[in-house]
Order: sequence, then C-alpha cells, then structure tokens
Amino acid sequence: MIHDVLNEKEITLGVCYYPEHWPKDLWESDFQRMKELGFTYVRMGEFAWTIFEPEEGIYDFTLFDEAIEVAKKYDLKVIMGTPTATPPVWVTEKYPEVLNVSQSGVQFKHGARRHYNYNSEKYQELSANIVNQMAAHFKDHPTVVGWQIDNELNCEINVFYSDADHHQFRQWVKRKYQTLDQLNDAWGTVFWNQTYTSWEQVYLTQPTVNDSHNPHQALDEKRFFSDSAIAFAKLQADVIRSHTNTQWITTNGMFKHLDNHQLTQNVLDFYAYDSYPNFNKIIPDDSKKPLQDRKWSFNLSNVRSFGGNFAIFEQQAGPGGWVNRIEQPTPKPGQLRLWTYQSIAHGADQILYFRWRTATKGSEIYWHGINDYHNQRNRRIDEIDQVSHEIKKIGSSLVGSSYQAKAAIVIDYQNEWDGEVDRWYGDFIDQSQEAWFKAFQYQHIPVDLLNIEQAKTVEDLNGYQVLIYPHAAILTKETANLFSEYVKQGGTAIFGCRTGYKDLTGQTYMMKHPGYLADLTGSTVEEYTLISPLQERPTVSLFHGDPVTTEGFNEVLSLEDSDVEMIGSFDNAYYRGKPAATKRKFGQGYAYYFGGVFSYDIAEQMLQDLHIQRSDALSLPEKVEIAIRVKENRTFYILLNFASSDQLITIHQKMVNIVKEQVLRGDYIMKAYDVLVLESQ
Amino acid sequence: MIHDVLNEKEITLGVCYYPEHWPKDLWESDFQRMKELGFTYVRMGEFAWTIFEPEEGIYDFTLFDEAIEVAKKYDLKVIMGTPTATPPVWVTEKYPEVLNVSQSGVQFKHGARRHYNYNSEKYQELSANIVNQMAAHFKDHPTVVGWQIDNELNCEINVFYSDADHHQFRQWVKRKYQTLDQLNDAWGTVFWNQTYTSWEQVYLTQPTVNDSHNPHQALDEKRFFSDSAIAFAKLQADVIRSHTNTQWITTNGMFKHLDNHQLTQNVLDFYAYDSYPNFNKIIPDDSKKPLQDRKWSFNLSNVRSFGGNFAIFEQQAGPGGWVNRIEQPTPKPGQLRLWTYQSIAHGADQILYFRWRTATKGSEIYWHGINDYHNQRNRRIDEIDQVSHEIKKIGSSLVGSSYQAKAAIVIDYQNEWDGEVDRWYGDFIDQSQEAWFKAFQYQHIPVDLLNIEQAKTVEDLNGYQVLIYPHAAILTKETANLFSEYVKQGGTAIFGCRTGYKDLTGQTYMMKHPGYLADLTGSTVEEYTLISPLQERPTVSLFHGDPVTTEGFNEVLSLEDSDVEMIGSFDNAYYRGKPAATKRKFGQGYAYYFGGVFSYDIAEQMLQDLHIQRSDALSLPEKVEIAIRVKENRTFYILLNFASSDQLITIHQKMVNIVKEQVLRGDYIMKAYDVLVLESQ
Amino acid sequence: MIHDVLNEKEITLGVCYYPEHWPKDLWESDFQRMKELGFTYVRMGEFAWTIFEPEEGIYDFTLFDEAIEVAKKYDLKVIMGTPTATPPVWVTEKYPEVLNVSQSGVQFKHGARRHYNYNSEKYQELSANIVNQMAAHFKDHPTVVGWQIDNELNCEINVFYSDADHHQFRQWVKRKYQTLDQLNDAWGTVFWNQTYTSWEQVYLTQPTVNDSHNPHQALDEKRFFSDSAIAFAKLQADVIRSHTNTQWITTNGMFKHLDNHQLTQNVLDFYAYDSYPNFNKIIPDDSKKPLQDRKWSFNLSNVRSFGGNFAIFEQQAGPGGWVNRIEQPTPKPGQLRLWTYQSIAHGADQILYFRWRTATKGSEIYWHGINDYHNQRNRRIDEIDQVSHEIKKIGSSLVGSSYQAKAAIVIDYQNEWDGEVDRWYGDFIDQSQEAWFKAFQYQHIPVDLLNIEQAKTVEDLNGYQVLIYPHAAILTKETANLFSEYVKQGGTAIFGCRTGYKDLTGQTYMMKHPGYLADLTGSTVEEYTLISPLQERPTVSLFHGDPVTTEGFNEVLSLEDSDVEMIGSFDNAYYRGKPAATKRKFGQGYAYYFGGVFSYDIAEQMLQDLHIQRSDALSLPEKVEIAIRVKENRTFYILLNFASSDQLITIHQKMVNIVKEQVLRGDYIMKAYDVLVLESQ
Repeated sequence: MIHDVLNEKEITLGVCYYPEHWPKDLWESDFQRMKELGFTYVRMGEFAWTIFEPEEGIYDFTLFDEAIEVAKKYDLKVIMGTPTATPPVWVTEKYPEVLNVSQSGVQFKHGARRHYNYNSEKYQELSANIVNQMAAHFKDHPTVVGWQIDNELNCEINVFYSDADHHQFRQWVKRKYQTLDQLNDAWGTVFWNQTYTSWEQVYLTQPTVNDSHNPHQALDEKRFFSDSAIAFAKLQADVIRSHTNTQWITTNGMFKHLDNHQLTQNVLDFYAYDSYPNFNKIIPDDSKKPLQDRKWSFNLSNVRSFGGNFAIFEQQAGPGGWVNRIEQPTPKPGQLRLWTYQSIAHGADQILYFRWRTATKGSEIYWHGINDYHNQRNRRIDEIDQVSHEIKKIGSSLVGSSYQAKAAIVIDYQNEWDGEVDRWYGDFIDQSQEAWFKAFQYQHIPVDLLNIEQAKTVEDLNGYQVLIYPHAAILTKETANLFSEYVKQGGTAIFGCRTGYKDLTGQTYMMKHPGYLADLTGSTVEEYTLISPLQERPTVSLFHGDPVTTEGFNEVLSLEDSDVEMIGSFDNAYYRGKPAATKRKFGQGYAYYFGGVFSYDIAEQMLQDLHIQRSDALSLPEKVEIAIRVKENRTFYILLNFASSDQLITIHQKMVNIVKEQVLRGDYIMKAYDVLVLESQ
Repeated sequence: MIHDVLNEKEITLGVCYYPEHWPKDLWESDFQRMKELGFTYVRMGEFAWTIFEPEEGIYDFTLFDEAIEVAKKYDLKVIMGTPTATPPVWVTEKYPEVLNVSQSGVQFKHGARRHYNYNSEKYQELSANIVNQMAAHFKDHPTVVGWQIDNELNCEINVFYSDADHHQFRQWVKRKYQTLDQLNDAWGTVFWNQTYTSWEQVYLTQPTVNDSHNPHQALDEKRFFSDSAIAFAKLQADVIRSHTNTQWITTNGMFKHLDNHQLTQNVLDFYAYDSYPNFNKIIPDDSKKPLQDRKWSFNLSNVRSFGGNFAIFEQQAGPGGWVNRIEQPTPKPGQLRLWTYQSIAHGADQILYFRWRTATKGSEIYWHGINDYHNQRNRRIDEIDQVSHEIKKIGSSLVGSSYQAKAAIVIDYQNEWDGEVDRWYGDFIDQSQEAWFKAFQYQHIPVDLLNIEQAKTVEDLNGYQVLIYPHAAILTKETANLFSEYVKQGGTAIFGCRTGYKDLTGQTYMMKHPGYLADLTGSTVEEYTLISPLQERPTVSLFHGDPVTTEGFNEVLSLEDSDVEMIGSFDNAYYRGKPAATKRKFGQGYAYYFGGVFSYDIAEQMLQDLHIQRSDALSLPEKVEIAIRVKENRTFYILLNFASSDQLITIHQKMVNIVKEQVLRGDYIMKAYDVLVLESQ
Repeated sequence: MIHDVLNEKEITLGVCYYPEHWPKDLWESDFQRMKELGFTYVRMGEFAWTIFEPEEGIYDFTLFDEAIEVAKKYDLKVIMGTPTATPPVWVTEKYPEVLNVSQSGVQFKHGARRHYNYNSEKYQELSANIVNQMAAHFKDHPTVVGWQIDNELNCEINVFYSDADHHQFRQWVKRKYQTLDQLNDAWGTVFWNQTYTSWEQVYLTQPTVNDSHNPHQALDEKRFFSDSAIAFAKLQADVIRSHTNTQWITTNGMFKHLDNHQLTQNVLDFYAYDSYPNFNKIIPDDSKKPLQDRKWSFNLSNVRSFGGNFAIFEQQAGPGGWVNRIEQPTPKPGQLRLWTYQSIAHGADQILYFRWRTATKGSEIYWHGINDYHNQRNRRIDEIDQVSHEIKKIGSSLVGSSYQAKAAIVIDYQNEWDGEVDRWYGDFIDQSQEAWFKAFQYQHIPVDLLNIEQAKTVEDLNGYQVLIYPHAAILTKETANLFSEYVKQGGTAIFGCRTGYKDLTGQTYMMKHPGYLADLTGSTVEEYTLISPLQERPTVSLFHGDPVTTEGFNEVLSLEDSDVEMIGSFDNAYYRGKPAATKRKFGQGYAYYFGGVFSYDIAEQMLQDLHIQRSDALSLPEKVEIAIRVKENRTFYILLNFASSDQLITIHQKMVNIVKEQVLRGDYIMKAYDVLVLESQ
C-alpha cells in the first residue's frame, strides 16, 4: 500500500519545483510559503542532468544540495527525479546513436525533450552512470525520501526506430520465437511473400508504400516498445536499490505502448499519475452528454488498477500549454479543488501540484504553476490553501481507504495495441469503454477497470457482479474459460461485436465468431458488416425499447441454443428483425452479447437489465459523481459536483460532513464545482 | 477475341487461390468445392517468389506442382502468376537498389508490396530469371493454360524515384529529344532559368520549394512511368513466349500512369480487370444522383476500349479492406450477382472471384473471399452458386458478343497526365466524363469510351453518332482535323471549356482558343475566368431552359461565323447575356462547344438536342442499366437493377428471359439488385 | 523621395518583360506597343543567369544588349534584375551546398525557383561575380536606369536549414551573445536541460519530437533569417554601387522573416512592392464585412511605412496562378484600373504591370500578362490604356504627394516573429490589425502603419492623434516610456490583451501584466484565460453598448488607480461584471486598455470614443475608400469604389475631378469599381 511505502498517516500534498530555474534568493521564501500551504513534499531534479554532470565524468551536486537544505529547513521531503528524460547536448552531440529516429528515418535532435531511445547501450550506460552517481550522493540524505525515474516515459513519442531499436528488436524476436519458422508462422509472412530467411532481415516496421505494415509484426513491435521502456526503468531502479532500501521508487505519467501494470508490479513501489483534467478542453467530444473533466475519473480508475492506491505527481494547478500547442484555458473557481478531490476519490494518497511557479522561459511558459509569473497571491493559491486545510482535517481518515465497485470494465494491452492499426475494431474499444463508463457515472454506480491479463484465476473476477469486456478481438481459450467459470459461479459478463476472433498473434481463428466464447454466449455471428461513413446507419431496439442508431459495425447473430434469449434486433437494413443482442443464463450467472459498438444509449438500456447492487443512502443528480471508500469499518462518500451550477442532493440516512464536522440529512444544495466528503454513521 | 484466346465456348468462372497459405489437407476439399460451384479456372502463384526461389539460384516448384495436381483432378485450369509484385526479402536486403523511393528520398522497404522499381537492371535480371525458371517448369503442364504477369502494375504507387529511375529517365529523354536544345524547347526551360547545359543535369522531378515542378517535365515523367511499366511487362512476356506459344498472357488491374491500351495491344493477349464496385462506399460523391456501384460500368467500358472483350481476374466476393485502410462494407444480398452480370454486360468473357477463402493472416484479413474464416457455407456462396448455374445456361450464348453503343466519350492519356498537375482543367475531365456517363446511363443510351490516340483515320470514329470530348487542353492539329472530317461526314462532336490550347509538350499555343478546333466550332473564347471557391458561381441557360449553376470555369464565347448558333448564355456576372454555348452545322454533322465544365444537368439538357438513335424495345426506370450485346444475328438485353427496391419495367416486344427460358412482354417487376437477360425474338 | 531618385516629374508606368522567352521578331512590335500604351519603364533580366553566364566564367550579354537597343528605340527605360533568384543548374549540380534544405533535411533541388540559401559562401561568391559582370557591362548603358536585386526575397520559402545556414547562425549567435552563459540565459536553456556547453552544439532549430522548439531560439532564428537576406541584398548592392552612382537600386516583394524597414533604409534607394489584390480570392476570410481586395490597402500602407512613397514592380494585370496552385480568377472590368489607383492612393509613384504577355511555358502559364497568349487586343489592354491616359494627365500633380493620416496602427517585427510560434497571442495580431484597419476604412479615416522599432523619440509619434498597438507581448521599458511620453503630450494609445509580458528574448517578465505599461494604463491583469474552441465565448459590453462576443482571450482587469475608468465589462463567465476595458486620462492624452482581441465590432465601438479629426469635405458610403494626399499646398482626394455596384457620394465643397477637369459638388454616382481623383479648391 502506498501509504505504508510513504510511511504517512494521512493524505499528503506537495508541489514540483525547479530550483535551478530561479534565483537562489527566491528559494527561502518559496519553501517557506510551501510549508505555509501545508505541503509535505517537493519534487525536483528531473530535468537537470547538465547541472549534475556538466561534462562527461564531472559531477556537481552543490546546487541541489543547497536547495535540499532549504527544503529541509521547512520540513519538506524531497523526491528526486532521475534526469534521463532530457539528455545533455554534450551527450547527443558526442553519441548521436542515443537519439530516437522516426520510422521514415528523421533523427530527432536536441531542442525539446524525450529525443532519446531506450535501447542504445551507450544511453543505458550513461543513464545508469548518472543515476548511480546521484543515488550514491543522495542515498544518505534523510530529506530525500524517494525517487522518480525519468519523467513521463513514452510521453511525446512512443515509437522508436533508431538503429539500436532495430537491433534490439531482432534480439527480442529471436528470444521470443527461437526459430525463423516460428517467426514466419506468427507473423503470417507467407502472405505477400514476406517470409524471412535470415534473422538479419528482420527489422521493426519500416517505411512502406501506403504506410501499411505486417499487422502481426506491428503488434509485436508495441510489445517490444513496452518491454524496452520497462527495462529502461528497471535498469535505473536496480541501480538505486543497490544503494538504498529506504528511499522508495516510482515514475509518473501514463502513456501509450507501455504495460503500466507490469511496470508498477515489477519495478516500482507505487505508481504516480499526472492528472490534467482540463485537457478535456482540447479534445473534441461530440458524443452524447460528454463527460468532459469527469472523464479523468476513468483515467484515475485505470491507474488504480495498476496496483491499488497511488500518487499524483502532477495535479493541474492552472491553465496549461506549451508555447505552440496543447493550450488549455484557466480552471474555473472551484475546479482545482474539485480535481484534487477527484484524485483522492479514486485512490490518490499523495498529491503534488504541478508546479510551484509558472516558468518564465522555455516551451512551457504557459503551463501555469500555482504562482503566476508575478509571484503574488492569486485565486489559485487561495483555493489550494483551502484544499490543504481540509485535507489536514480529513486526510488521516481517508488515507489508505479502498474504492468500492461492484462492476468493472475489462481492459487489456493486446487489443489496445493490435487495435491501433486495425480499423475493424480498434476505435470501438475507446468508444464502448467511454459509453459504459458514462452510463455507470450517470447512474452513480462506481466502477473499476480490470486488466484481464492480470487475472490468474476466477477468484480475481469474483469480486464483481458485472464485467464489461466490449471488443476483445484477441481472446484466448484460457480467457474464454475464465469468463465461463466466472459466469457459471454467478457473474454477469457482457461482450460487444468483434469479440474472440483473433489469437495472440493477431491472426484470425478459423471458427465462427465469437470463437472460444461461443460456448458461453450461446450465440454466433451469422454475418457482419462494417458501417461505412457513406452508408445509412441501421437502428437496433433492445428490450423492446426505443430504436438506437448503431455506429461502426453490425453483427447479425444466430442463436445456437434454446436457452438463449434474443434481447434486441435490428430494425432495418436487409437483416431487419434478425438478432442484434442475446442473453443467456449460464450456471448461476448471465452472458450478454451485443453485435455492435456500445453507445451511451445502449449501455444505459443494458444497465437497467443488470440489477447491480447499489447504495440507497443518497439520491444524486446526474452531474454529481459519487465515490465510495471503505477503511476498516468506516465508509466514506465523496461527492463531486462537476456542474457549473448548484445541484440538489438528498441524503437518506444520517451522514457527517467530515470537513465541517456537520451532521447532514435530507436535501442539500451543492454549489457549482463543490465537493462533499460524508461519512455514514 | 478473348474467348478465342481462351479457347472457350462459354463464359467461364473461376477463383483466386493461395495454396501456400493453407494446410495441404484443405486443398482437396477446396478444389472439389470449386468444381461443385462450376468453376473452371483457378489463379495462383503471384505472391510466392520465396517459395519458388527460397534463396538466390535455388528453385523449388514442388508445392505448386502438388497443388496443380489436385486442381487437375477437379478439372480446374490453372492461371499462373509471375511473382514480381513482391520481391523476397533476400532480394531487397542484398540488392537495395531494386527498391522504389519517394520523390523526397524515402526508400520503401520490405513489409508490404510493390516496393520495387521497374528500372533497376538488377530487378529486371532477377525478374527475368524467375519468370524463365517458372516458364521452363510450367510450360509443358497442360493444366497451366495462361499467365498473369506481376499483379496490379502501378497499384499502390505509380511514381518512381530510385536512382535507376532517374538514370533511365535520362536515357529516355535523350532518345526522345536527341539534343539538349530540343529538350530545353520542349520543357520551356528558359522560364525560371531552368536551361540544361548537360544531360547529366537531367532528373525526374525532384523535391522543390512548394512542391511545384516544371509541368512539361512532369508530363514527360508520366509518359516515362508508363513506358517503364510496359517494358517491364514486356520483358516477362517475352521470356514466357520464348518457352510456349500455347499458354496465353495477361495482367490484371487498371491503374494510373499506365497506357493500358498500348500495354494490351503490344504485350498481352487480352486484358484482365479487377472489379470492386463496393469501393463506392469509400469514395465520397456529393454530385447529383451519384452512380455509386453503377459507376463501375464506366470503368468496365474503359477496359472494353483497350481491346474489346476482356477478363475479370478479381471480382468482388465479399466485404473488403486491409487491416488499416480501404474498409468496404458487406455486399447486400443480390449485389455479388448483380456485379458479376455488370462485368458480363460490359464485355467480360471470363470472371474469377477474389478469393476462395478470407485470409487469416497479413494485411488483407478483411479482404473477404467467398468463404469466411470458418469455411462453412454462407450467403455469399449461395449467391455465387446461383450465378454459376445461370451462366452455365446462358454463357455459351453471350460469350463473344459485342457491346452496342452509338455514342462515345473520348479519352486520352496526354490530358489525363498533364491535367494531374494542372488545376486549370485537370479536375474537370473526371467531372465532365462522369456527368455525361451519368446522363447516358439515366437515359438508357449505351456508351463507349474511345481513346482518340488509337484513332488513325476517321473510320475509327464513324461508328458513333456522337462523340463527347470534354476538356482536351492538349489537342494537336491532326486531332482537330480528324474531328472536322468526322463532323463533315455526319458525326456530332461536343467539346467543353479549356479545349485545344496546348500542344503535346503542355505548352500553350499562341492562338485564340480552342486553337485548331476553332475552324470546326466556329466560335472562339473571348475571355475566360476560373471560378474560385470564394466566388459566386454564375448560372447558365441552355436552349432557353432553367438556369444551371456553373462550376470551375466560365468561357465567354465569340461567334466567328454567321452559321454559328448561340444555344446558351450566361445569366449573371459581368458577362451576362454573352454566349456560353454554341452549335454549328458543319458538313453533314454538328459541332457543339460549351464554355464550361459539364454537370449532370447540362449534359442532360444537351443530350435532348442530340437525337441519338435508341432502341424502343423497353421502357426502363432510371435505376436500371441496360446493355445491348449482339452476336451474329442475336441481340441480348442485359438489365441490371442497381436499386435497393423493386423496379417496374415494360417490355414492348416479345423477349425471352434466357435464364428461365420464359417469354416476357409487358410490365415486369425487377426485384432489388435483380438482373434480367433478355433475347429479342 | 522615390521620384527624386527616379528623377521623374510624374507618376510613371511600365511593364515586366522577358525578351529571352519570345522570338526576336516579336520584340519590335512589343516595345512599340508598350510605348503606345504610354509606358516608360520595362523590367527584364531577373531570371536569366544562364543566358548571361551559360557556363562558369563564360559571359554573354548580347541577347539583352539587343533587347535594350529596341527598348531604347521606343524611349523605354530599362530596369535590370540581378538573376540570383534562380541559379543555373550548372551551379546547383556543381555546388550543391548552395541549395536550401528543409528543417528535416530534404534538400530542395533544381526545378522551381528560390532553392538556394543566403549563407553559402560559394553562392555569395557566384552571386557577387555575376552581379559584378552585369554591373560592369550595363553601368554605362544610359537606357539602363536602375537595378532590381534578386526577385522577391523570402517568397516561396522563408526558412533555411542548409549546413551553411547552421554554420552562419552559430557565428551570428556568437557575435550577439559573446559568451555561452549569455546565450544560455537568453534562450532559457536551463529549462528541459538544454544548456549549451560548447558553441559547436548550437544549430538553427532542428527536427524534434512534436515539432516544438526552444521559443527563444526560434525567435533569434527569424532575426537571423532576416539579417541573412538583408546581407545578401547588401552584398549585391555594394557590388553595383562600386560601378555606378547613377543607376538606382531596389528590390521587390514583401515577404515574411524580413525586416523590410531595415532593408529599405540600409540597402535600397526605395522599395518596390508586388501588388496582387486578387489573391483575396484564394484567402478565405470569414470575418464580418471582409475587406477582400481592399485589404491590399493595408499592405500598401505597410510598404509606405518602410520609407514613404514607393514603386510597384508587379501590379496585377490579369488572372493569376501557377499550373498547380494559387489560382486567381479574372479581374472584373474596372478592377485593374481600381487597383492601379489603389497603389497610387497609398504612395506608388511608379507602377509596372506584371507582365507584358502571358507565358506559354513553365509553371506560370496562368499568371496572365496584359496580353493573352494570342497577343491580340483585349479588354485588359483597353483598361490599362485608359489608366495610362489618365495618369499622363494627373501624374505630375500627384507624384511625390504625401498620404495624410491622423491615426496609426503600430507594428513591429519582434512580436510578428515571436508570435508565429506562440499560440497565446500570435494569431491575435493579424486579427486585431485587420479589425482596426477595417473600422478605419469603413469610417473613412485614413490610417498609417508605424513600425515602433523605427521610433527613436516621441517626435516620431507625435504626428498621430491615435496609436493602436494591439498585442505587443514583447515590450521593453524603453517602448513603454515612449508611449507614456506620447500620451502625456496629448496622444491617445490603445492596447489589447497580452501586452507587455515578454522581454526581447521572448521570456516573460516577473511582473503583473501589462508589465512596464501598467504605469500608463493604470490597470493590471488580475487573471486571464484563453478561450478554447471547445469553450463558450463570453461577451463583453463597451460603453454600455450591445454585447459583443469575445474570441481567443479574456483578461480580467484590475483598476489600480482612482483615475482609471472602466469602459467595459464582461457579461458572463465567472468573471461577469468584472472590468474588460479601461480608459485613463494621463497627462494631456488617454490610454485605453482592452483585455481581449479586437474584433471589428469592438474596434468600431472604441473608434466612436476617440474623436479623431477628419475631413468633412465628403460623405461617403462604406464601400468607397478615401485617401487624402497633400503636396505643397494642394490636397487631393482619391476615392476608390470597391463595390460591384454604383455608390452615391456627396461632395460638400467645390472639388475638381482632375482627370476630367470637371468641377463637382453635391451628389455624385460612382460606378462599380470606379475611381475619382478630386482636388479641393
């Protein structure tokens, strides 16, 4: 548990700080004001390699030693970042082989960040060395309590095509397949005469006409990218651990082509997420009732699935944006507080704001800190001050409590990665996950994410009444069996179109769909069609309800057994009247299959049929999110009003607002963006 | 004639098959089921180079020998593909000079297909060698009856910028122009100081600022690409013919930058087209009354113009798509049959479906075959079974019959290629061709395409009452004379804006437009303007009809002779009231000139004035296409219902539905997507 | 003054001509017809390097000597272009280092124009040499009166990344910063660990992940590009001046990344602009009441700010366009005349039309000259003939007169260049400049552009009653003081959001906004937010007027002094009711601050409050532009009707139409596109 690792008895706050950016005469007042704001942690060091090692083999830790001394004076604990996200220019000029390269061969140069590759032996050597020097230097410093490895692995770019990457991929493939025959089989190279007759012919995907690559190779490539990033983090973690067993290790972010579950469980002490809910203002969402900043609850649930409670190392503290991209508006009054509680609601036991003061130079002068350029008190500081006081009050109660969910959306990396290039199901995954999450949110049913690759036995699933696994194109016999057993024992499983037709190589089974799951669902796919944008979109009616427009894909189902119930059919197209959705009692539970992509409307309709247990302690309007957290025998309800207007809630049993130590019951008005933390009596 | 070449007495069906993809124990049942479906032909081998030649100089034909034996057992004739579309990785790794390169210098690597260039001497040598080995091996095998050269020449990519291409282009230019002075004249290099003073300075177009190249060089470049592809096909054809004179030779496809007329007439025994009408679902068409899948009738007419009746080597057999692109929905019930008859209606005497079974691996796992992954009977097999039974009945009657058309749309390659980079007329060609074709279709007037570059004398034109040549910017004095003679002898010729102002280099004549055609049309262009998207679009009224909006270009005409009639004028703009269209009796015929781009409405209005002879045997609704085929003294009417609904037709004279051997007269309801093959009595 | 330099007593006309393109037997009639059209000047030579120097070190001037002889015969004065815009292919093949290169490393090759870089020593040497040869040859030719250096510097491309550019940038940076510490400070390299530890590590911006570069480096890069272009022009000018002091020197164009003020004042005798108002038909403008071709008055005002009256070397003479881009429709009857007078109204004392005859070859066959391909009299020739006759009458009166403006829009290069990559204000500059210019235009208030970088003392500003400086993010203490002094002395200054928060490096001040200007405006920015496209746009009400929607940015202001007046507030968002605009009397004048981007509506509302002196001699409708020109004690009113319809004007005092020598008073109808040149009596 993270709070055991941190050895904290309460939820703690902190901030990111770059001592190297600011005149030293500001340090004293900066750290003093942090303490006044109730901060416990300060992160530093992650972009300072050249300060630590101004030239190869010459080290200088004085600047940070001094900063740490000042931090110590104000009782701040320091998290030290390893600086490998931004190699010095002396590294990249001397050893250009450490640079990352685009697929078409353009080498990324000094001038931004994350322009290195994970597989260069030289970069691994230089990285291990600087981390070794830093760990040796800081290991005995009691103010330094933990480490952040690198910064945002796979952010900015998550593909790598340097010579070192091509070379290491070849080794990776050799280890995985042992023989060329097995490689050729797995990649289906007989198609289009791609058969490899020597290991030396094997590369990561390369430039091709029309940018189309062998899809099985493309899937392995992402596995390799993930393994490379994890190995790079492990290299650093191992070095640090060779020096200390008291300073903990984490990394921050959550980006693509990275198995964060494996990373967390094999390398880190806990995971730290960077939460910027105002990104919703740069991501168009024309779906029904968009979740906007509330969608970050999905991301936080994902982080929770890596290994329980977690940290936030970068919590949005103001407007955001680089000079030339990602421009996010200013959070409205109350939103910084709301988003802090959103993190806590979903499992954050430690939160660092990004960052102390808005930078005055460089690409991120618009990625605002708590403080403005002018460094004077402002609205955001006031708001964080309030949060800090509240957390001081309730943080010891909440810390280490567990999020309660009776339902889970099932995720995995294989389909995420394979689906990236597969237009026949890839985009559906996000759409359906979001549709279901939205339905759960608006119905006030807390939901987890569950990585099925982590599930070893049916016990890992049994905690949930309902599992939604929308479009698992890749699905093995073992996973199918796991779901069958889960349903047999009383669980409910829901699948969408395109389920179960691929093996782990991304090749298709020579079976009726949904492949190994057909035994459980009792229905198969008679025929299917994608719905092209130039085509009319058929509607479907579920449970005799109103017709709902389908998008993306239609599967016409065939009921293979008499105990299978048609719960929905198509209203038009040449397959009108044919089954679109089925339900089957199987053992003690139910298996649902829907031959399409889930929209909010469809998820909402199916949800009515699921009868998930839920608390009747509160009546909430749609715009208020609820999180239920339990610790020992205490139950907390965290209510988050994402609306810009007042919202009426009704409390049906006696509750205590533990921030104000006030007993509440009956109707209550939550102000715009307000938060309520209740404990049931 | 193709059926003479094939030595068949009926229309034959077949399928594409990849024995190398499937376990051998499937072969027997696969071929047996092909026979049961009435198939005669099976194509194989075109992506199997590494199987034939696993390493340089080592050959192994056993796998295909065995497959051919099984095919033979079920009376299937084998078409063997030469495998040059996908070089082995041992070729491209050992001889990277064989790879194609983008204009900006990115080399296309192993991983997809068609990543080679036609001009590498090494690739020519390796290709000639493997074709030689194959021809030597298969020439005496009676089951192997013909060859497909390569696969879809110029598909995926139709530009080539490897060193070999630059080098060979220099030789090509030397042969064409003999002296640098003549090159400089032809390319107008005096403009922008582009004058060449040594042959070594000459390349294919290279990267330039704003991606603008010398347009005359760009035109020659396309001629060179076409010549290169034809020479590459001829290299292979010559090798095959040195071994056999009984096995015929073709290639398949129809792609850009390739003079298919020359290719067919100089290299092939007949042409084979790949017909995928469901591509209409990935090509947006916001024109009035879009033709959708019926637009493939235009393509088929184009193929017919290469050399009469033809084959289809890939007839759409299901949904289509690569993993990451070109996704086409599932054909609706009846459409596979409809499209098969569409091919026959326009001149196909042999049809192979693509492909037997949907691939389970590689980029094309969604390019569905007749059989699904699961290999069990499905709706598509039923439909093809029906077609096959029908063709067995009527194929001997129809085979070798000729398509009857009294009108033709005139095409050529020079304007197609020059127009690619010329925004002042290039896009108009397609728009006007489609507008006219649509007008002819909806008026049930069968129409041919006529490549004017193939016309040697006026006799080649005289078969048509009307010729439409929409926007021949490049037009020589010889062609102008040909049209004058044609009209003089009674033909009707129709021209659109931008006609006749360029010579064969793409330079403009120093003459009033339409240049050498002004003598025939009797009208010249007083002034003109393009219609920018930010500009109001004037309307034009023809034959005192309703105003029609013009798009793209307006030419204000001047009547140069008293016998010229103004048949339309502009309704607005500063040239309102001025002539927009003229008509002139010239000799026994008529010359029309329209100073704009043809829309469907304008083509439709002009069509009323043309009085083209047409059959009064049938009254048809708009959505039903008619093709009239004649053989000896028999006349066949093939009716194709492209609508998703029933259509009422009226048969005015006794006809026989030769599929059902049923006499028909009077009203008749064609079902959605249905086909009727009638013979007049 | 340009007319002193030209030594002309009247406004003169001319044309661009390429003798090398045309058969010599056309020259005689061409030059004769130019004379008949009243032309005085002919420009030639600028794309003829290979004719002058067919191989390295071999020179041949005979073709142009002959052409000049014919020009002389018809009293035409020749402007000779140096030919460096299009290097010969023998140069680029022999010395590929002279070529320009894209940021990602693609070298631009022979085939278009402007594919060279300014910093190659070899290109400088070759350029100096050919200019030297030409100057030596033509210096004594009395018909050759002046020189155009190169052609359209920085047109087509204005970034340069060849090795020579990287190398020279390193030298430029060394000269500017002297030490690496100062470089590191200026570029803020401590951010993201970009610290340079050796000069050899410094380059122009290079390819980076997500195409994001150090913004301070990116700003210096543009300064370097400008300096490089100016140095290249100066190199040539110095060579010419070493031969002659009677032939004047200019260059033509007006493109980005070039300080045209410096160029004009340090290198040229006067500036020559290329005016193509029909470009408005290829630039979408969805703003309110778009200015269309009238927007070229803004460009002409910009040119006037370089150094007073100027020349036009390319005045649009017909439709325009390359083969593959920039396609502009045909000017309507009257527009060529209108645009000629537009140039004169804003300060052109010499106008050359581009070009004599439409090219028959090359990329610009659609960039129409006065003459069509067919070379016969046309509508455009008639119109230019009319203009020429009119200018003969009034040109001596108008020549050298001065444009009168009481208001100016303040411009500078630092913000233009920095704003290019800064999404937090860059786009606002153009929007606000256009909004204000439009408001001035429609209110008939003549306006200048004023480059604040040229202003040394307050005297340089005092001529204006009002200065609008919309979004000067970069603003030094010195400039702030200049404005304070200007206002103190009675001027009115208007600023928009994002003013004053950056220093000359592009780093942000650690001050409240608007930084050093806060003392003048008396208001500071309490908080701000950008308005994302996914966000609702608040409205603002100024002077209790109607609410106007804001775009892009909102600043909430804080009134810092009791003498500051809130003149507008936000109507909604969480800052409703808070100040959006302030006004303060400061000394004798007023300072306005608006916390937003200026729209036409807002500029229009503020304009009402400014009480700018204006002439009451005329009442004009919106679509008619007025320019007031003064010379000695004569005042001229040039009225330009940009409407396609008749416009009623009222003349309140006796005026003379000096073209028709007609006294006018009272109502008068201007025809569509008509021009009136009035002199007050």
